[in-house]
Amino acid sequence: MVKLSGRIFNDVELIRKYIDIVGEESKKRKIVLVSGGGDVARRYISILRSLGGNEAAADMLGIAASRLNAMLMVYSLLDRGIDVYPLVPESLSELAKAFYTHRVVVMGGLQPGQSTTMVSVLAAEYLRISVVANCSNIDALYTDDPSKNPNATRISKATVDYVSELLKKEGVRALAGTYELIDEWALSIMKRSRISMIILDGKDPVRLSRYLENGEVMGTVISPE
Amino acid sequence: MVKLSGRIFNDVELIRKYIDIVGEESKKRKIVLVSGGGDVARRYISILRSLGGNEAAADMLGIAASRLNAMLMVYSLLDRGIDVYPLVPESLSELAKAFYTHRVVVMGGLQPGQSTTMVSVLAAEYLRISVVANCSNIDALYTDDPSKNPNATRISKATVDYVSELLKKEGVRALAGTYELIDEWALSIMKRSRISMIILDGKDPVRLSRYLENGEVMGTVISPE
Amino acid sequence: MVKLSGRIFNDVELIRKYIDIVGEESKKRKIVLVSGGGDVARRYISILRSLGGNEAAADMLGIAASRLNAMLMVYSLLDRGIDVYPLVPESLSELAKAFYTHRVVVMGGLQPGQSTTMVSVLAAEYLRISVVANCSNIDALYTDDPSKNPNATRISKATVDYVSELLKKEGVRALAGTYELIDEWALSIMKRSRISMIILDGKDPVRLSRYLENGEVMGTVISPE
Amino acid sequence: MVKLSGRIFNDVELIRKYIDIVGEESKKRKIVLVSGGGDVARRYISILRSLGGNEAAADMLGIAASRLNAMLMVYSLLDRGIDVYPLVPESLSELAKAFYTHRVVVMGGLQPGQSTTMVSVLAAEYLRISVVANCSNIDALYTDDPSKNPNATRISKATVDYVSELLKKEGVRALAGTYELIDEWALSIMKRSRISMIILDGKDPVRLSRYLENGEVMGTVISPE
Amino acid sequence: MVKLSGRIFNDVELIRKYIDIVGEESKKRKIVLVSGGGDVARRYISILRSLGGNEAAADMLGIAASRLNAMLMVYSLLDRGIDVYPLVPESLSELAKAFYTHRVVVMGGLQPGQSTTMVSVLAAEYLRISVVANCSNIDALYTDDPSKNPNATRISKATVDYVSELLKKEGVRALAGTYELIDEWALSIMKRSRISMIILDGKDPVRLSRYLENGEVMGTVISPE
Amino acid sequence: MVKLSGRIFNDVELIRKYIDIVGEESKKRKIVLVSGGGDVARRYISILRSLGGNEAAADMLGIAASRLNAMLMVYSLLDRGIDVYPLVPESLSELAKAFYTHRVVVMGGLQPGQSTTMVSVLAAEYLRISVVANCSNIDALYTDDPSKNPNATRISKATVDYVSELLKKEGVRALAGTYELIDEWALSIMKRSRISMIILDGKDPVRLSRYLENGEVMGTVISPE
Repeated sequence: MVKLSGRIFNDVELIRKYIDIVGEESKKRKIVLVSGGGDVARRYISILRSLGGNEAAADMLGIAASRLNAMLMVYSLLDRGIDVYPLVPESLSELAKAFYTHRVVVMGGLQPGQSTTMVSVLAAEYLRISVVANCSNIDALYTDDPSKNPNATRISKATVDYVSELLKKEGVRALAGTYELIDEWALSIMKRSRISMIILDGKDPVRLSRYLENGEVMGTVISPE
Repeated sequence: MVKLSGRIFNDVELIRKYIDIVGEESKKRKIVLVSGGGDVARRYISILRSLGGNEAAADMLGIAASRLNAMLMVYSLLDRGIDVYPLVPESLSELAKAFYTHRVVVMGGLQPGQSTTMVSVLAAEYLRISVVANCSNIDALYTDDPSKNPNATRISKATVDYVSELLKKEGVRALAGTYELIDEWALSIMKRSRISMIILDGKDPVRLSRYLENGEVMGTVISPE
Repeated sequence: MVKLSGRIFNDVELIRKYIDIVGEESKKRKIVLVSGGGDVARRYISILRSLGGNEAAADMLGIAASRLNAMLMVYSLLDRGIDVYPLVPESLSELAKAFYTHRVVVMGGLQPGQSTTMVSVLAAEYLRISVVANCSNIDALYTDDPSKNPNATRISKATVDYVSELLKKEGVRALAGTYELIDEWALSIMKRSRISMIILDGKDPVRLSRYLENGEVMGTVISPE
Repeated sequence: MVKLSGRIFNDVELIRKYIDIVGEESKKRKIVLVSGGGDVARRYISILRSLGGNEAAADMLGIAASRLNAMLMVYSLLDRGIDVYPLVPESLSELAKAFYTHRVVVMGGLQPGQSTTMVSVLAAEYLRISVVANCSNIDALYTDDPSKNPNATRISKATVDYVSELLKKEGVRALAGTYELIDEWALSIMKRSRISMIILDGKDPVRLSRYLENGEVMGTVISPE
Repeated sequence: MVKLSGRIFNDVELIRKYIDIVGEESKKRKIVLVSGGGDVARRYISILRSLGGNEAAADMLGIAASRLNAMLMVYSLLDRGIDVYPLVPESLSELAKAFYTHRVVVMGGLQPGQSTTMVSVLAAEYLRISVVANCSNIDALYTDDPSKNPNATRISKATVDYVSELLKKEGVRALAGTYELIDEWALSIMKRSRISMIILDGKDPVRLSRYLENGEVMGTVISPE
Repeated sequence: MVKLSGRIFNDVELIRKYIDIVGEESKKRKIVLVSGGGDVARRYISILRSLGGNEAAADMLGIAASRLNAMLMVYSLLDRGIDVYPLVPESLSELAKAFYTHRVVVMGGLQPGQSTTMVSVLAAEYLRISVVANCSNIDALYTDDPSKNPNATRISKATVDYVSELLKKEGVRALAGTYELIDEWALSIMKRSRISMIILDGKDPVRLSRYLENGEVMGTVISPE
């Protein structure tokens, strides 16, 4: 289970590298990719806000944008002859059907009020996968926001409970298009089903490749306990 | 938007009273009901655990049970000639289609990792409804669990932020079938879309009736701010 | 093609044994299971009747209950790593798609006015399967109801025409939730497509196991001619 | 609820008259039409038999042919500006959705092993309609086949039980494409849900018109009791 | 039937004006909008080409982008309380269902190899609508490309056959994302079903408004004969 | 990719021979068949015209008829134990899912305004197949209609551009049920995705067999360039 930040889709070379990695790894294992919405999501959400839609509608646009990114991955993978499910699943049920008959499945968001990171955790639980590799906008978890606090320390290992404490400092926040790295709800699913998450820098695909090949973590491991 | 605790479905007379209220109120306004899973959910989840399924599967059984309760409402309402959507929507999209062509829609759960209370909040946001009446297993919000702490005080009005602080005392918890009254995620949606929730005692349908008729709250109002 | 009486789902140990058998046999052949509605079906149908629904609605609740039982089987089989279709097919078309890509498929009812035994016969015909093993509430076919007539004799082999004559003594009867062991309609399908049915005692899973392993019938064979 | 024999679709003028009647009556009441498969069904079933398909497949072709006839009705009704559901429902659920939002719905068959007469009875039960007008290949029910037995008497009123006795003389028979006027299973649904059926000569549309306008029955009434 | 060029979605004020017009006109008549893919379509198609997908895949991305634009319209219209179908139809069948129960329907593309202009013509034919207002990237039809040929003359009225002759000068051309104003195939549908098209400058919404209100054409009328 | 003219379905022996060929070839390669509507299509379209439907409706009946022919193929192939997708795909998405899990897929038409030849070209592009074998009503392409012009010459090889020039002589023409051998739109897809088409006499199945086995073309090759 690999989560790809929507920002990756701003850079063709970055996409190409992820496609190379997925193509290569799919020979050895089944892979589920969840792509974020990125710039297109942000753009449409911003237009909608100026025209007067609600937050659920904003999330629906974000979901549609994340599926557009997912389609781009699907068609590029098909072009290389990889056994990828030829559509983007729009529900966990469709994901389950796709997963049992193909080596690669790529999906985007599912429902308003859910980050695509949450989707990757839900999908992992549903398919009994124990680790989510999260290729995100940051390179690792820090004790505080490193751009604001020079004393913020990089964390290489943390438990769900520890991360939950970190989040509690920040209050209730879920505007469409601005979901944080991870949320309480994703943490609670990770805890109940013993799922770990690896935070990796999405701008450096080599880190995903290294993790998939020999388990090396150049980022943070969040473990259920 | 009315959330009905699954426990209501243990008592035929209670169901009948809710059907009477919905039938009566549907002449004046559109109503969306969300029913919980109740005893059938708990029974199947317990069997599954003893046979070895995972938490997502347990939630799927809970969702199926909540839909069974919803179907029971639908068929009873149809029998009285009420303009109810004749199926139980299985996604927000189907809910939207049903809502714009019928006066009453009844649904159950939607996705693993979500309480039916969360579903009622998401559906309210999606349909631009500003209040959720939650006919729950308790009669109101308390400062602590009244069965354990004799000093627990009944709360008649609270903000989302206040309730969020209450929840933080309790830690990360989301076992299928044991979702709490309300969770962080539901609160964040209420906050972002300015939705209020009215906590009412589900065992006393008169309270729902009074609330729908003249806005009287015999329980707790949780307001977005 | 194996039909499981809904009563089996009252007893966790019984379910576990059937799961063991299906898991074991799925290594050797493809298996389609059809589960009945059992106690949950009867309970909801009884509540609906007291609230005023019609017979088609009662059957729909019975179908939903049988699908709940089917889901329980699916999730338990998935947990053991068996190649089972991850959903419960809701039509013969969905069954066909599932059957050609998985080793085990589990389904419940399909339509009002149809027993789940009828579903198992229809599904067998649709998929070109020539025998239905019916793990039922009785241990075999008798010349009369053995609980009422001490002279009732156990039948080990019978033709469809003979069973049809037995049924004609009893008149037209199809209340939701009280479908008999087998009906005229199921017999007519068995006859036209040359399908046999093996009646086995559902409370004794060893009988199914023996039948699947060496063809031994500890009950009744109903043959098309 | 009006059942139209597939044979009607051999004669354009006959179709035109039924469209006139439905158009006229739809101003006064909601109408559900179920069309049979007729000659196209028989032709394809015969080709399939010579190529080697099974009975379920033969029924599926008959269902597809009956839907083709239904589509013809739908498009002709749309062309006259009548509020008809623009598709042919392929399940009882789709029928229910269509029925509550349109004045006319036209469907064909649903499942293998079911005559379209059975479909009309099931649909009537599902939608709480108490009478099915069956525009069939015969002009009324007779005590015996009038083409073979000159002493056969025309029956103007009969109970479900009486018709059931008539059928028992004829044995188990359900080849695709040769379903009889009415079968045991349809009778059992009529009995359990107190549905009547009016047998009318399909070749004389005036009889349907007269029945719908003033209740005059120029054929046979089969009543549940 | 109104076709909106995808370029309109680059400019929030332009979208707002079209929403105002649709909101106003929907009080008087039913409206179907078809939106193009615009810049997002072009961007994703260009990325796909550099990564190696085929033309059908490129068209699929264009369709997804046009649906994103359509969703934006839907949510903005819902926010103003207009009776718009709450989803974006993905087939002509879904369009038909939506059209008969709502006052406004917004859709995007449907299939590879089809421009959204073609979709608007197909949808008009399917729904028996006789005129398509095409808010396009040009302000009218010209005898030649006015940016290349200073002698190109503006055409205010033309027949399908005349436009067809104009197109024949340009040869076979259908790269995804570069569909011309109108193609042979759309012309043939307009001809067979006697549909007219009004070419209007999409950058000036007043022209659509004037046309809808009093039939004034500030562009070109293409008539079937 | 093999297109079968609907006329083939008038002759059982012809169908049987095509089934033999498909059964045999499916051992060596994956096959997608697209069947035309043939006589049933023409008959229903003619009835509809006399009853007053529009061209889109006429095309929908033609599509339904072509799917009936496709179902006949599917059931006959299933009867021989061939790994064929058990349904007839109704969209390109369903085709894609079917194609990646089965060795044979059979489909009919998809949308109004499209010939089944166009469907075979679209499907080929979507699935990255480079040649369409078109078993048509003629034995080859001619420079003119050989039944009218005795000087018409048989063409063994032609480019898309050449065929396009031939078509331009004939004007805009697309009445439902009378689609020509090939149209401009199909040619443009063949050109953009470099797909060839082999025109073969549908009445002589040996020609398809020879082409599939050793590439021998007893008809015309239309190549993209």
